[in-house]
Amino acid sequence: MSYAELQRQVAKINDVLNALSVLTWDSRTQMPLGGADTRGQQLATLTDLARRLILGSELRRALEGAEHEVSSQAPDSIPARTVAQVREAVEVSSRIPAELVSDIAALKPTAQAAWGEARAANDFPRFQPYLEQMLDLSRQLAEAIGYSEHPYDALLLQYEPGMTARSLSALLGELKTATLPLVRAIAQKEPPRCDFLNRDYPEDAQREFALGLAKKFGYDLSRGRLDISLYPFEISFTRQDVRITTRYRRDYLPTGLFGVLHETGHALYEQGVSPELTRSALTTDFLGLYAVGGASFGTHESQSRLWENLVGRSWVFWQVQFPALRATFPEQLGGVDAETFYRAVNRVSPSLIRVEADELTYNLHILLRVELEMALLEGRMAVRDLPNAWNAKVKEYLGLEVPSDTLGVLQDIHWSTGYFGSFPTYTIGNIMSAQFFAAARERLRGLEDALAQDDYAPLLKWLQDNIYQHGRRFSPQELLKHTTGKPLTTGPYLSYLREKYGMLYGLGEQA
Amino acid sequence: MSYAELQRQVAKINDVLNALSVLTWDSRTQMPLGGADTRGQQLATLTDLARRLILGSELRRALEGAEHEVSSQAPDSIPARTVAQVREAVEVSSRIPAELVSDIAALKPTAQAAWGEARAANDFPRFQPYLEQMLDLSRQLAEAIGYSEHPYDALLLQYEPGMTARSLSALLGELKTATLPLVRAIAQKEPPRCDFLNRDYPEDAQREFALGLAKKFGYDLSRGRLDISLYPFEISFTRQDVRITTRYRRDYLPTGLFGVLHETGHALYEQGVSPELTRSALTTDFLGLYAVGGASFGTHESQSRLWENLVGRSWVFWQVQFPALRATFPEQLGGVDAETFYRAVNRVSPSLIRVEADELTYNLHILLRVELEMALLEGRMAVRDLPNAWNAKVKEYLGLEVPSDTLGVLQDIHWSTGYFGSFPTYTIGNIMSAQFFAAARERLRGLEDALAQDDYAPLLKWLQDNIYQHGRRFSPQELLKHTTGKPLTTGPYLSYLREKYGMLYGLGEQA
Repeated sequence: MSYAELQRQVAKINDVLNALSVLTWDSRTQMPLGGADTRGQQLATLTDLARRLILGSELRRALEGAEHEVSSQAPDSIPARTVAQVREAVEVSSRIPAELVSDIAALKPTAQAAWGEARAANDFPRFQPYLEQMLDLSRQLAEAIGYSEHPYDALLLQYEPGMTARSLSALLGELKTATLPLVRAIAQKEPPRCDFLNRDYPEDAQREFALGLAKKFGYDLSRGRLDISLYPFEISFTRQDVRITTRYRRDYLPTGLFGVLHETGHALYEQGVSPELTRSALTTDFLGLYAVGGASFGTHESQSRLWENLVGRSWVFWQVQFPALRATFPEQLGGVDAETFYRAVNRVSPSLIRVEADELTYNLHILLRVELEMALLEGRMAVRDLPNAWNAKVKEYLGLEVPSDTLGVLQDIHWSTGYFGSFPTYTIGNIMSAQFFAAARERLRGLEDALAQDDYAPLLKWLQDNIYQHGRRFSPQELLKHTTGKPLTTGPYLSYLREKYGMLYGLGEQA
Repeated sequence: MSYAELQRQVAKINDVLNALSVLTWDSRTQMPLGGADTRGQQLATLTDLARRLILGSELRRALEGAEHEVSSQAPDSIPARTVAQVREAVEVSSRIPAELVSDIAALKPTAQAAWGEARAANDFPRFQPYLEQMLDLSRQLAEAIGYSEHPYDALLLQYEPGMTARSLSALLGELKTATLPLVRAIAQKEPPRCDFLNRDYPEDAQREFALGLAKKFGYDLSRGRLDISLYPFEISFTRQDVRITTRYRRDYLPTGLFGVLHETGHALYEQGVSPELTRSALTTDFLGLYAVGGASFGTHESQSRLWENLVGRSWVFWQVQFPALRATFPEQLGGVDAETFYRAVNRVSPSLIRVEADELTYNLHILLRVELEMALLEGRMAVRDLPNAWNAKVKEYLGLEVPSDTLGVLQDIHWSTGYFGSFPTYTIGNIMSAQFFAAARERLRGLEDALAQDDYAPLLKWLQDNIYQHGRRFSPQELLKHTTGKPLTTGPYLSYLREKYGMLYGLGEQA
């Protein structure tokens, strides 16, 4: 009875969080400008209601009864996992003072606005006091959540449970050591031809082609839709309604095309969650106040990267797709063949802006952000020293001079919203994506043949069976262990990078 | 302090109700089919949360303090009205048992589905048991709300506070007496030419033209938008975000065109509510659990009808607009002049379907429904006798044989959702629209000239000043009294109908 009551209460919390997501989707894709302020108040109220339900006495009572009721069940059964996750959510949430939550929520819009103005005006000092406040609140948040080694551990808990500053630093160190020589070797090589990517690609045709690929991957449009937004995202309101957005650049084909494949990967994850987990604790991020089926931010990102990069930027993929793409854009791609196209969309070229980075240098962008975040949190660095430190790292890792803070330390919105600790999940996703994909290759007979025949159903089914269906029932570590037999490891990712870019740039064995 | 606290709590309730509206809009315009079930659960949860907040001890405490605090203020001041409306809402809501609320909510989707099946199969008996249950629950609801004379009074309270079965019957009787001879006289006359309304009108051009008119009326698209839905509606999430929908028939121009003008009227009302009432009790329908600025359903409908009919179907309007319409559709309207068009869109022709009825016979559709509703509620009629009674009334009032229940008693969704008492608000809106418009004509110098010059700003401003800005601060009766000096009266509406249709059909004085 108590467990059923707990499920009932969790379902209501999940409903509220899904309603929040509908309001968020609407505000980014449909809402007229005038609605922004009152929408913000609606979001704040629903967030507060959700938090009140999580911390309320009703849930606590049901939880206590449910813990007793399911105590004899296997520890990784759905009921045991349900009560464990609700328990942890209640414990952690109740350690965070309500005042701190509202201070962060109140600072967010003003800090974001200051960041926007500072970025537009290339004026870091304008943002500095807000970033100092946000850093201070994030430190307080870390202390409230608690940690044994590093304040960053507490912040990581919100995005990537089980990950620590220590293990993250080790992973990033391995990546850095392996990536820098590759990037430097590639810099010596002739860049591939890319001019045709910048021709005039009408948006409707881009949309149709990209959505066609998404459907081939298995994106179910009876439970989804594709819209336009300034920043692409995927969002779901249970597995039954999983929406993606993208943006199209008429003068640059890859933005819309790979943007759609990326968000499709996220969407396939959410659409693949088992129906029995709908409205359950195992599709609820109680800490992030977000109804989501993915095990962690990194795990989610691993699937967007897997479908975007390991499938969608592979040679076998463009061998199959290119004829149809050229038929869609006969003038723009006249005289271009599949290999030339494949080389172009995999060009490695260090750049200043993270979201425009290629697959290889992308992680260097993350690396420098994580190093700076940790230094700020530890107090080893002051906010005012951030621009210089940023520029030095860009020089060191990417070999570029940063001409302005707008193109440097002010480029990302993340810090203005207090999301310290979220950047690494992008790189964790990259590492995981290769580890999962290598396991699929090894364990799924006929995968290569299927992909060569434009058939993605076997891969999707393997990912659903091994990852998607479980929602948040297993931790990222458990999913990796079950699926690949190993903890998170850079091996498969580094092999993938070395093989792919070695071939593309003729680097030979030593690179 | 208590009043401020009451305002804070009401703002949260208003936020939740606005969130509900966003979810409703999304479900009718954007949601993929697969999302329907979980969306239903999200709506139910938010509805339940809103009800809990309204009946909670926090609100009650704040209300008691606020009543004391504002007791010296003028009775029609905003604070006095605020506490009075929250008090009434709390009192009435707490009289309705939670079980009855959830019984009605639970019956709604199944009754609606049964109605849909029955309508499709022309099979009233399939719907009958559900309608019997819904009628029984509606009777229980009326008893719970309470009334002194007639159970219908209690149901009307939800939609049209202040209206009673007695006064409604008197109004409808006056309409019937005046309308039937008009309709019969018109039936003897030559019908106007209408063939050109059924030519091929591409939807994009319809949309652009209709939206152009909406903007001329004053619909602010920085706080609104126009979408397509199966059934047209207006919905708002505060005055800052007021959306309308319509449907277009390629083969019949008036559906989309007048549909947009109608919903624009609703939207102008909501956009015109004073900003200081945003998120207040005076933009909250606590009983209907709906965030809305209009004083009542009938008052709201009076504004959709005013802009659609009294402005949008007037001779002066089409004198001004027709050249642009013909320029938009030169082939479809070749050889048609403004007067011919004006006559066509005002054709009177008794029909079986309410939503397709002309302005004059429309009220007869409402009349017969209200008579049947009252008979059902009083127990004077059994549900199984409804089809025969329906058909007899259609014969009597409209002179038509009903060939099937699909085109008869099963045509409207309302009864399957339990909305007994909502039909009369359409006719109340018609009556009010003429009363308000007559007052504007009398009191607003230069109105005729402005309209003849395609200038709607003076009319909009008069309506904003006298009606829209006040939100739900004043009752419909008070608005009428302040604005027209009289209670609700059929005089101006009957004069309008007699004058307009007398001219159109050359009926002379006696009709």
